[in-house]
Amino acid sequence: MSDTREQILEQIKLQGDLVRQLKASKESKEKIDEEVSRLLALKAKLGGDAAPTNQKFTLKTPKGTRDYAPQQMTLRQGVLDKIIQVFKRHGGEAIDTPVFELKEVLTGKYGEDSKLIYDLKDQGGEILSMRYDLTVPLARYLAMNKISSIKRYHIAKVYRRDNPAMTRGRYREFYQCDFDIAGTYDPMLADAECVKIVAEVLDTLDIGDYVIKLNHRQLLDGMFEACGVPAKDFRAICSAVDKLDKSPWEEVRKEMVDEKGLDGAVADKIGEYVRLSGGKELVEQLLADAKLKAVPNAVKGLEGMQLLLNYCGLFNLESRVSFDLSLARGLDYYTGVIYEGVLKAEPGAVGSPVKASPVLENGKPVAADQGSGTVGSVAGGGRYDNLVGMFDPRGKAVPCVGVSIGVERIFAVLEAKFAASNVKLRTNDVEVFVASAHKGLHEQRLRVLNQLWDAGIKAEHSYKLNPKLLAQLQHCEEHQIPLAIVLGDAELAQGVVKLREVSTRQESTVPLAELANEIRSRLKA
Amino acid sequence: MSDTREQILEQIKLQGDLVRQLKASKESKEKIDEEVSRLLALKAKLGGDAAPTNQKFTLKTPKGTRDYAPQQMTLRQGVLDKIIQVFKRHGGEAIDTPVFELKEVLTGKYGEDSKLIYDLKDQGGEILSMRYDLTVPLARYLAMNKISSIKRYHIAKVYRRDNPAMTRGRYREFYQCDFDIAGTYDPMLADAECVKIVAEVLDTLDIGDYVIKLNHRQLLDGMFEACGVPAKDFRAICSAVDKLDKSPWEEVRKEMVDEKGLDGAVADKIGEYVRLSGGKELVEQLLADAKLKAVPNAVKGLEGMQLLLNYCGLFNLESRVSFDLSLARGLDYYTGVIYEGVLKAEPGAVGSPVKASPVLENGKPVAADQGSGTVGSVAGGGRYDNLVGMFDPRGKAVPCVGVSIGVERIFAVLEAKFAASNVKLRTNDVEVFVASAHKGLHEQRLRVLNQLWDAGIKAEHSYKLNPKLLAQLQHCEEHQIPLAIVLGDAELAQGVVKLREVSTRQESTVPLAELANEIRSRLKA
Repeated sequence: MSDTREQILEQIKLQGDLVRQLKASKESKEKIDEEVSRLLALKAKLGGDAAPTNQKFTLKTPKGTRDYAPQQMTLRQGVLDKIIQVFKRHGGEAIDTPVFELKEVLTGKYGEDSKLIYDLKDQGGEILSMRYDLTVPLARYLAMNKISSIKRYHIAKVYRRDNPAMTRGRYREFYQCDFDIAGTYDPMLADAECVKIVAEVLDTLDIGDYVIKLNHRQLLDGMFEACGVPAKDFRAICSAVDKLDKSPWEEVRKEMVDEKGLDGAVADKIGEYVRLSGGKELVEQLLADAKLKAVPNAVKGLEGMQLLLNYCGLFNLESRVSFDLSLARGLDYYTGVIYEGVLKAEPGAVGSPVKASPVLENGKPVAADQGSGTVGSVAGGGRYDNLVGMFDPRGKAVPCVGVSIGVERIFAVLEAKFAASNVKLRTNDVEVFVASAHKGLHEQRLRVLNQLWDAGIKAEHSYKLNPKLLAQLQHCEEHQIPLAIVLGDAELAQGVVKLREVSTRQESTVPLAELANEIRSRLKA
Repeated sequence: MSDTREQILEQIKLQGDLVRQLKASKESKEKIDEEVSRLLALKAKLGGDAAPTNQKFTLKTPKGTRDYAPQQMTLRQGVLDKIIQVFKRHGGEAIDTPVFELKEVLTGKYGEDSKLIYDLKDQGGEILSMRYDLTVPLARYLAMNKISSIKRYHIAKVYRRDNPAMTRGRYREFYQCDFDIAGTYDPMLADAECVKIVAEVLDTLDIGDYVIKLNHRQLLDGMFEACGVPAKDFRAICSAVDKLDKSPWEEVRKEMVDEKGLDGAVADKIGEYVRLSGGKELVEQLLADAKLKAVPNAVKGLEGMQLLLNYCGLFNLESRVSFDLSLARGLDYYTGVIYEGVLKAEPGAVGSPVKASPVLENGKPVAADQGSGTVGSVAGGGRYDNLVGMFDPRGKAVPCVGVSIGVERIFAVLEAKFAASNVKLRTNDVEVFVASAHKGLHEQRLRVLNQLWDAGIKAEHSYKLNPKLLAQLQHCEEHQIPLAIVLGDAELAQGVVKLREVSTRQESTVPLAELANEIRSRLKA
């Protein structure tokens, strides 16, 4: 049921008052624009579709979203193509799912973060929400289609009503690039391959030095048990540990004790463990630790880490991975190994706006870890063996492990690099521009264009009947088009045209009949 | 403000009653599922995120949407790649916009169809709606960024709360592939190129014979004026004419007279014109028509058609285009030339489920035109010179002309073709599978895989420690992987492996060190 006219008029009055208050108290422009925008939307409801044109609403994209201009699209497509290449090298198949799901598909999957889910208005019919990640839709897809093994990638936008920080790469609409391996397999074989994929993606994108932090949820739980955390508080304490990459231990300890009611002595024991990181030798050391040895979960987690580190060694990743007990990851659904690819700060790059800005990880900012010299997470993932079972009517589980590449952060890093380098990306692929040397040649241009298009050559012209030659050649230079054909009556009478190399301005005469072949051989050279 | 617990309990009671009623009256399963789904969503509200796992809700995608499985993704990507190739051949640059817009951006753009727009729930902040097409977001983008010329393509999903008919290719979430040319140019040069693009796309996709129908909104208006339609009724009568591709003239006439209050004699005059179609000679005939000659709009429209047909001739499209006075197109915003690419029925194919099913055009079904032997629209577009101005604060216009490819219909045609042909599309690109001949070789497999991946070769293996050789080779055959490496202790001791061609089952021995090169040369051959 929609509101009556009276109700809307009342809402407009209240909203108008709010806007006046905000203006009076000199609130931020963004805040005022947002409320003005709501006011105009309410007014539009009254007008219905008879609303006048040239409405005076703020012309903008929704808060936390952005358009991609051609330059950004070119960069984005380049990044995604490289990532897809890695995913395919590991046998990935693509799937896609709808941008919204039945609301109950998302319910109970994201813990505290569920408040960030976008809901659709109830317009009759089903109750829908926008997807929050690509993992829950995958689990729904596997359960619904009774698929017990797949190696799939999925590159698509997800939606979170988070507080955006757009200049720092945190959006409400953002891309995720996920690769997941579902199936009942032997321990750590698929998990190690996901770690390898993170390394290959970061290598191919060439965005700087990185480390892949590894940990294990079973070890974390075992460690909490060994320290004396009550089992019911494992997830809450795990969430607190997750904040160690942006907050110092003192703050995290305060959260554990003051907010989550943990005994101070227990927190201090946790504090001893979470400062540890290393390699195989650290696993050995912890396997010999008296407190941990007594907890089966801790031992199982450590044995898993041992196997994972062994496989990472076979994949030549020793120098890339670090077993790090402070890595916890926010999401509730992980059940085994977890990992995170983190860019290291480049020496002397601390002051640069890109390097110093908070970092995006699955749409959330991760501030600089001042201690370790790392700047931010650009990939993350782990094992989640119980999520698919939550959707299966009989609870049949499909074990899964996967990785998500934080491409928005990567786009931001590369955009800043390009801006600094003054290199202008080409945003079109035009190979040849067909120009007129003088008036009255537009029909000849169309004939030549048709010949080129039919030969598969990328060609364009001015959509003016009589464009100036200089303007046409400037267009070629601005758009980095390599070749131009210049038509003139004198040449056409002889069945030839001038072919011009735009960068050198060298011209040669080519018979019309040989034009396509000549252009092809020029482009190869 | 969200509902109180009491309100929700009351809603659950009412919704439960509704479901019981529907079941009692044996309503369709889809209808019942939908209402059950709402009931469960209401119940979930009560439980919040503490809702239990293994909920008993119907496991499905939202009404009118679908998942794309790997086979469908492969087909879809193949179609989109071919279309992008055409768009780039004409100098197109890509842009992207958010999936939702401020509601007022969409308000007043779609006439009667506005009721089909998906709105997001008001969760505080701005009032948002899902994009309904890619044209209005383009206009918003151009006005917002003060861009006065661009040649852009945009391939993305759009959303319409229409009555879905999924088996016939009509969805609530569906792809649009748009190419538009914005800028102030000389008449019909950009318009004719859009017609050429439609032809190139349909040629490259090779989905059957087609015709591109052409008409002009100014001519339609002039014709209405000449027949005596009051100016205020032009758009409504135009909407009625638009139905001629799915309804016989008698029904359309009835709508004009009975629903829209048109004088019967005026309708009959329109009826005379809208049955006309042809080429240049028809333009000549109409330019000589006494009634039309007297109306400046009609003459301008006809002169435009004359020029367009001339340019289409230069593009060798005479046999592809048809000037058709019954073509009207539904959207309000067109101001000049309009066109539609329509697949022709193949002889004897009338009974086939694909050919006979209603056809998708911008997400709307277009039934078979029984008279002309055509089966449905797969592309459409036209000129809209005033849409950008609706967003500009000072009303500054940016003339635009564009084309939208109806890819969902094209996917449906190709999916049916593939299903009939028994050809199984490959959904992965794996070049070589690394197999174990016997137990205990998993570490060797990982070493070989690592060598191959680092050499850029697409490779996979079983994630089991000791898989059966037969199972591994069957996997290769099922997934059409061309090559397999078979590891065995005896061979490894000599530094060699067996390389097997899966289709012929021929094996040869290759030194480990030469493996990557050997695989590359095999794949080339």
